[in-house]
Amino acid sequence: MKKVLLGAAVVGALVSAGAQAQVPADRSIKYRQGGFQIMAIHFGRINAHIKGERNLTPAQLEMNAQVVDTMAKVVFEGFVEGTDQSANTKAKPEIWKEFAKFKDGGAKLSAETAKLVAAAKTGDKAQLQAAFGGVGGACKACHDVYRNN
Amino acid sequence: MKKVLLGAAVVGALVSAGAQAQVPADRSIKYRQGGFQIMAIHFGRINAHIKGERNLTPAQLEMNAQVVDTMAKVVFEGFVEGTDQSANTKAKPEIWKEFAKFKDGGAKLSAETAKLVAAAKTGDKAQLQAAFGGVGGACKACHDVYRNN
Repeated sequence: MKKVLLGAAVVGALVSAGAQAQVPADRSIKYRQGGFQIMAIHFGRINAHIKGERNLTPAQLEMNAQVVDTMAKVVFEGFVEGTDQSANTKAKPEIWKEFAKFKDGGAKLSAETAKLVAAAKTGDKAQLQAAFGGVGGACKACHDVYRNN
Repeated sequence: MKKVLLGAAVVGALVSAGAQAQVPADRSIKYRQGGFQIMAIHFGRINAHIKGERNLTPAQLEMNAQVVDTMAKVVFEGFVEGTDQSANTKAKPEIWKEFAKFKDGGAKLSAETAKLVAAAKTGDKAQLQAAFGGVGGACKACHDVYRNN
């Protein structure tokens, strides 16, 4: 087993360094959409397990939760200012009008996905379900306000 | 700092369990394209550091390498059989004609991205550059054969 360290502090440092600045708008949009797509699929697998449609092993659950968590910690980099001006995005301009609040929503998601990893590690379905709900709530809170349908 | 465990064995177990089977073709295509997009952007940041266009901290280098490595370990799940039948993909039918060989290319990439993480951890630019070349070579080996331009 290979250990991967991915701390919120590291990600925060990366984002605050303005690392995204040189990336064109279309790449930023593809980046965040790709990240959310990956997050959604792995999150969906955990949902299927909770609903009893799948029977994932503890290792599979943990792996899925970790991918969700990693995506939550990098995907918000893709919300570069000005990248709402495209037909290819559902991102509302409100994101950049209240960017601090939006980023706070991202931080809340990241906190919840970290709990999902912890819950997946326990192998306890009730804990997993509770953590799953926490992540889902954090997703929805932002989607309701900042995403066009 | 939070520790994330993501072992090749775990990913292998997930993939071999046919976990992707229920995902529709367009989602599979978005999944792999999203993964490669994320991989490319974080890989590009490491390249910019090597070329001296950026000066990333060791933590930033490691984080970028880890995202590349995580994507390398999940993205090949997106190559579900039949998902070359779309205008939205550059994937050649050869992928599914010689799928074992293609997956072997993915395994080689994954081995190289693991070395990239190790090199990023040393903070040594020469080691980073060598590992970067290894990853780039593994990317190109498959792109030359399996990707339309």
